[in-house]
Amino acid sequence: MTAANVVALAGGVGGAKLAYGLAQLLPPERLTIIVNTGDDFEHLGLHISPDMDTVMYTLANLANPATGWGLKDESWNVLAGVARYGGPTWFQLGDRDLATHLLRSQWLREGYPYNWVARELCRRLGVRHPILPMSEEPVRTVVETAREELPFQEYFVKLRCEPVVKAIRYDGADTAQPGREVIAAVRSADAIIFCPSNPLLSIAPILAMPSLRRIIAASRAPKIAVSPIVKGEALKGPAAKIMTELGMEVSPVGVARYLREVLSGFVLDHLDETHQDAITDLGLRALVTGTIMTSNEGRVTLAREVLDFAGVSA
Amino acid sequence: MTAANVVALAGGVGGAKLAYGLAQLLPPERLTIIVNTGDDFEHLGLHISPDMDTVMYTLANLANPATGWGLKDESWNVLAGVARYGGPTWFQLGDRDLATHLLRSQWLREGYPYNWVARELCRRLGVRHPILPMSEEPVRTVVETAREELPFQEYFVKLRCEPVVKAIRYDGADTAQPGREVIAAVRSADAIIFCPSNPLLSIAPILAMPSLRRIIAASRAPKIAVSPIVKGEALKGPAAKIMTELGMEVSPVGVARYLREVLSGFVLDHLDETHQDAITDLGLRALVTGTIMTSNEGRVTLAREVLDFAGVSA
Repeated sequence: MTAANVVALAGGVGGAKLAYGLAQLLPPERLTIIVNTGDDFEHLGLHISPDMDTVMYTLANLANPATGWGLKDESWNVLAGVARYGGPTWFQLGDRDLATHLLRSQWLREGYPYNWVARELCRRLGVRHPILPMSEEPVRTVVETAREELPFQEYFVKLRCEPVVKAIRYDGADTAQPGREVIAAVRSADAIIFCPSNPLLSIAPILAMPSLRRIIAASRAPKIAVSPIVKGEALKGPAAKIMTELGMEVSPVGVARYLREVLSGFVLDHLDETHQDAITDLGLRALVTGTIMTSNEGRVTLAREVLDFAGVSA
Repeated sequence: MTAANVVALAGGVGGAKLAYGLAQLLPPERLTIIVNTGDDFEHLGLHISPDMDTVMYTLANLANPATGWGLKDESWNVLAGVARYGGPTWFQLGDRDLATHLLRSQWLREGYPYNWVARELCRRLGVRHPILPMSEEPVRTVVETAREELPFQEYFVKLRCEPVVKAIRYDGADTAQPGREVIAAVRSADAIIFCPSNPLLSIAPILAMPSLRRIIAASRAPKIAVSPIVKGEALKGPAAKIMTELGMEVSPVGVARYLREVLSGFVLDHLDETHQDAITDLGLRALVTGTIMTSNEGRVTLAREVLDFAGVSA
C-alpha cells in the first residue's frame, strides 16, 4: 500500500456518511469528493443543491442526525412566512439552511463558477476536503412516470416518490462537461469509491456524462462500489422501489450489474453474504463486511475497510 | 363634504401609521397609498422594498410595534446562518420577513410588474387598500457624503446615518415614469395627503419624477402635508440630522418650505404652535393638532382630522 489519491463519488445521505468516514482518514489533498448535481433545482428564485449540501453539512458536522439532510438545530420560520402568503411549502427550507441557498444563489448569479462557490461555502464552514459539483453545467434528473415527466425534486419531495417510475433521464448530461478539477481528480485517482448512494439517482447522473464515464471506465485504479441496498431494502430513500419499478433485481447484485462497466470491486453487507458469489461471477472482487453506518465511528470503520479493499493506505 | 378619492404619499414608519389611520376611515376604492421605492435595494440576491413592506405590514396589523418596521414575533435564524458563513449581516433580515423578499423577488424575476406583485402580496395578507409602488422603474436614493456616495440603505442601516450628508440624489427619477395607476389615482384625487415621512428620503423621491411632480403641482385638490418634525426632532429616523446638514430649518416651517410648491395646507403639532404664522405666511392653510400617533386610535384620530382639514368626508 502507498499514500494515494482517492476519489469518492457521492449523492445524498448514504454517500455523505461514507465520505465523512473517508475524510477522517485521508487529508484534504488526498481525497476529492465528486457530488451529483442532477437533483439541483430552482425554488423561490434560489439555486438549491441538495446533495452538495448534504455532503458539506455532513463533513462540517452540522447535519441533522435524525434526517441525514438539512442542518441540526434547524427552525422553519421562513417557511411559516411563505405559508402565510399561501406560497409553496412542499420543499422543506430550513432557516439556517436558507443562508446556504442565499449565498450560493447570489454568487452563482454574480458569475462565480459553481466549483468556486462550493469551495467557498465549504471553507467558511471549516470543511477542508474538496467537494466538487460533478459539472459546472446543468444536468437535471427527470423522472418519467406513467402520467407525466417530473423534475426530480417534485417526484422526490412533493410527490414523496409515490408515482410509478417508467424511466429516468438526465437532461443535459449528454453535452455537459465534467469540471476540470473533476477530470483531473479522476485521472490521478489511485482508487475510485462509489459511495452507497442511490445508483439511479445519485451515481447515474455522474456517469451520464459520456466523457466522465469514459475516463472512469478507462481508469486502472481499483473502482469500488459500496452497496446502498441491504437485504432488499435501501438504507435510505427510494432506491429499492425504483429499482423494482425499472425491473432491476433489488439486491447488491442488481446494483453491481448496473454499475458493472465502471467497477472492479464491490462491497456488500454481511446480511447479503449469499450474494457474494453472484458478485464475483460478474467479474468483480467482493468484500463482505458491515456496511450499515449507525455512528461516526461506523463511518470511519467502513471507510477504512473500503480503502484497505482498494489497496490504499489511510 | 362629499365622498371623495384620497391619495396618500408615504415612506416608512410615520407614513405607514397615518396610512393605517386613513385605511380605517376610507374603503379601498377611495384610498390609494403611493409609496416611495427610492430605498429599494438588492441584497443577497433579493429585491427588498423597505417602505412598501412597512406600509403593507402596518396595514396588515403585522408590523413590529417596537420598531415600526419588520414583523412582530420575528426571529433571526437565517441571519444567524448567514453570520456562520461570515456573510453580510448589516441588514436585518427577519425570518418571516424573508418570505416577503423571496416571493417578491421571484415574481419580479418572472417578469410580473412591481405593481402586480405589490397587490398580490397585499391580497395574500388580507390588505385590501391599494399600496402602489411610485414607479415600475428603479429610482435609487443616493446619499452624497464628504467622503463618498452611498446607496441609501448603506448610509441608513450599515453606517447608521453617521456620515454628514452633503447632498441627496434620486438616480433614475429623471426618466422614471410613475405607474399608470399612480397617475390615475393622483389625477382623480379629491385630496392628496403627504404622510409624516422624511421629506428628503421618502417624499422627495416620489416628487423627483418630473411628470408626477407636475401632475401633483397642477392638481386643484387640497394637498395637505403632516409634519414629520415636532419640536425640532424627527419622530423617527434621521430627518432632523439630515435637514440640519443640508442647511434647512429643522421645524415644520423647514418642511413646509421644502414642499411648498406642491402643497395647499400643512398640519403641525400643538408643540409647534408658534410656527403656525410662518406656515400661513408661506401661503398655506395651517392646522394645529396632536400629530404624534402613539396608538392605533391616535392614527385614526389624526387621519380623521387631516381628512376634515382637506374637506373630505370619511
